[in-house]
Order: sequence, then structure tokens, then C-alpha cells
Amino acid sequence: MSDNGSLRRGRPGYDQRGILDVAVSAFIEYGYDATSMGVLADRLGLSKSAIYHHFASKDEILERALDEALNSLEGVLEGTDASTGRAADRLDLVLRGAVHVLVDKLSYVTLLLRVRGNTEVERQALARRRAFDRRVTALVEEAQAEGTVRSDIDASVVSRLLFGMINSIVEWYRAGGREDADKLADDVIAVALDGLRMPTSNRVDELLG
Amino acid sequence: MSDNGSLRRGRPGYDQRGILDVAVSAFIEYGYDATSMGVLADRLGLSKSAIYHHFASKDEILERALDEALNSLEGVLEGTDASTGRAADRLDLVLRGAVHVLVDKLSYVTLLLRVRGNTEVERQALARRRAFDRRVTALVEEAQAEGTVRSDIDASVVSRLLFGMINSIVEWYRAGGREDADKLADDVIAVALDGLRMPTSNRVDELLG
Repeated sequence: MSDNGSLRRGRPGYDQRGILDVAVSAFIEYGYDATSMGVLADRLGLSKSAIYHHFASKDEILERALDEALNSLEGVLEGTDASTGRAADRLDLVLRGAVHVLVDKLSYVTLLLRVRGNTEVERQALARRRAFDRRVTALVEEAQAEGTVRSDIDASVVSRLLFGMINSIVEWYRAGGREDADKLADDVIAVALDGLRMPTSNRVDELLG
Repeated sequence: MSDNGSLRRGRPGYDQRGILDVAVSAFIEYGYDATSMGVLADRLGLSKSAIYHHFASKDEILERALDEALNSLEGVLEGTDASTGRAADRLDLVLRGAVHVLVDKLSYVTLLLRVRGNTEVERQALARRRAFDRRVTALVEEAQAEGTVRSDIDASVVSRLLFGMINSIVEWYRAGGREDADKLADDVIAVALDGLRMPTSNRVDELLG
């Protein structure tokens, strides 16, 4: 939640963002606890003091990385709060936006999803994830109330299943693969909102049933 | 893949299954590498040699635990291979069956999903997971070919999104919660096959569109 990136920029080789990218990859590969500032310095080809020029501590690196993912996800919700469309349409936008955040910030979201609450920074990130989930659940409830989304499933289960599906993308998505973010977002919407079954198949079932 | 559980049973306090349950919880809590046989012995209130009476090594404990999850998941596919229904109906059965395995063997599947391939046992488990995914993908392709499942999404993406949704259940499901496995399986099927959007909502869109 520090906002002094611009003050610390300009060092040759790596700026703050470059260090963050490398640190996030290392945290994912070795785990946060196992990644010492010395390991990071080796990986960057910098001295530890060069890293401390940009970040006060390893904890601050983690905080900035988790902020990056959380700010982007929260931004998706903010972007739809202002609009006045149906809740179902805003839910559509939130799901699409979340897929784009995952694809654009894959390693940052991967790190966020691995957080288990072992430190104060991690606990704050978990609290923000829970707040995000509650807002998505509220949006699902709104869509259920307006009659655009089926109401026979608990809204919190709906939001967990939807984000379970979306978050799982970090497990297999690789930049430059066959699917770009737009197509992937379309696919998620197709499964989540319209379902996989062909409409004709449903109608046949109704006729037979 | 050892099958000598019955030979080693009968020790007072913990049978092989009981040790396995406790070990799986410890592996999830501390990580496999950080859980020594000494840690396990403390947690069980047994001597290390009492554990070695049941398992040749920590690696064998992990192998048995992963087998437990994989055998159950593979069993779901076997159970549907024999039936002769439409592929869409068999897919329905596979998804429901997988939800039940997750709920019934929550900690075992949680452990399986955390495996990253650091040891030979882990690599074998990952290979079996990939084989499972391929069989689900083939089932989706079959359903697409018979015209019961939409074919505008790549079958491997469909199976990844579906199992992303299902596997995420381990993150939040707790036994004795509000949803039982049957209701949860219904919810997954409702989202995955029929979609969240109310049919009337679609029809209105079509009329307006």
C-alpha cells in the first residue's frame, strides 16, 4: 500500500517494477519463506543494498506484489459499480475483467492465490480477498433478485464456484498459448452464464421429460 | 500402489489408515518436505519405528495418500465408461462423482492438488492427473460430436474450467457445512451444464436483440 514507487525509480538495470517481477517469480518457485534477500540479490545480479534502495524489506516486496494483484481485481469491481446496467450484465463484466487481470498479471495473481495468512501482510491480503468475494456475492444476490440469474443456488456458493473456475486459469494459462484473454473470457462467460449444454438438448429433454 | 494394508493392521492406537489420515493433515499444514518422520511420530504419539511398522518410508506414505485420491477419481471415470448413455449424461455423472470424491476425501484431494512434481512419487501422480484430464477432455469431445455440448469452446479448455471449478471446492468446503455433497454436485452441474442465466432472461435478450 506504499505509493512511493516513482521516488525510488531510475536505478540502472532494474527499476522497482523489474525487481518486483523477479521477486514474484522467485516467491512462486521457492516459496516466500525460502526466498531470502540474498537469494533475490543473486537472482537479480544485484547487491542486497541495491534491493534495499527500492524496498525496505522482503515483507514490503510481498506487500507491493499482493497490492498489485488486489488493486487490479478491486479495480474491476469499481469499474462496474458506476454503471447502471442490470446486475447480470455487471456480473458478466466482472467475470470478464477478472479473467483479463489473471492473464495480464498472471504471476502476481498466482502469488496472491497461494497466500495462507502466515504474516500480517498476508492476513491483510486475505481480508481484502474476502471483501472482494463478499462484493461479488452481493452482485450475484442482486442479479438473483432482479430475476436474471437462477436463485436456486446460494449466492456465496455461486461466487466461489465462479472464482474457483477463473482462479484455476493460473494453473495452466501461459502467455502466447492458443487462447488469448478475450477468447478465454468468452469461454468462462459461456460456461458460467449460459452453460455447456446445447439449448436444443434441453428442449429435447423437456419434450421427453 | 502397495496393497499390503491388511497385513500391517491391528496395532493398537492407529492402524495404517489412521496414520495416513494424520500424515495427510500434517503434509497439508507444514508441507511434505517440512514434515519429518519425527514430526509425524510426535503428532501421532508413536515412535518412529511404530510408523515404520506400517510404512517403509515417508515417500510411501505420500504415495499411498495420493493413490487414495487418484484411485477414487479414476474410479468415477471407470464407473461411467461401462454405461452406454449419451456422452453429455456421462459427463454429468463424472462431474457429480468428482464432487463426491472431493467431499468424501477432502484432505487427500487437497494434497493431490498441491503436488508440484518434486519427487518421483509426485511426478507419477501428476502423470495420472494428466491422464485423467485427457479422458475427461475426450468425453467432452464426444459430447460435442453428438451435439449435446456446445462446440465453440476447445474441449481441453472446457475440462480445465470444469475441474478448476470442482477442485476449488477444497479451498472452502468443510464437512458439516450448509451444503452437503449432493446439493453441491447439483450446484456444479447447474452452473456448468445449464448456466446461471435464467432461461427467460435469454429469451428476453433474443426478443430484444
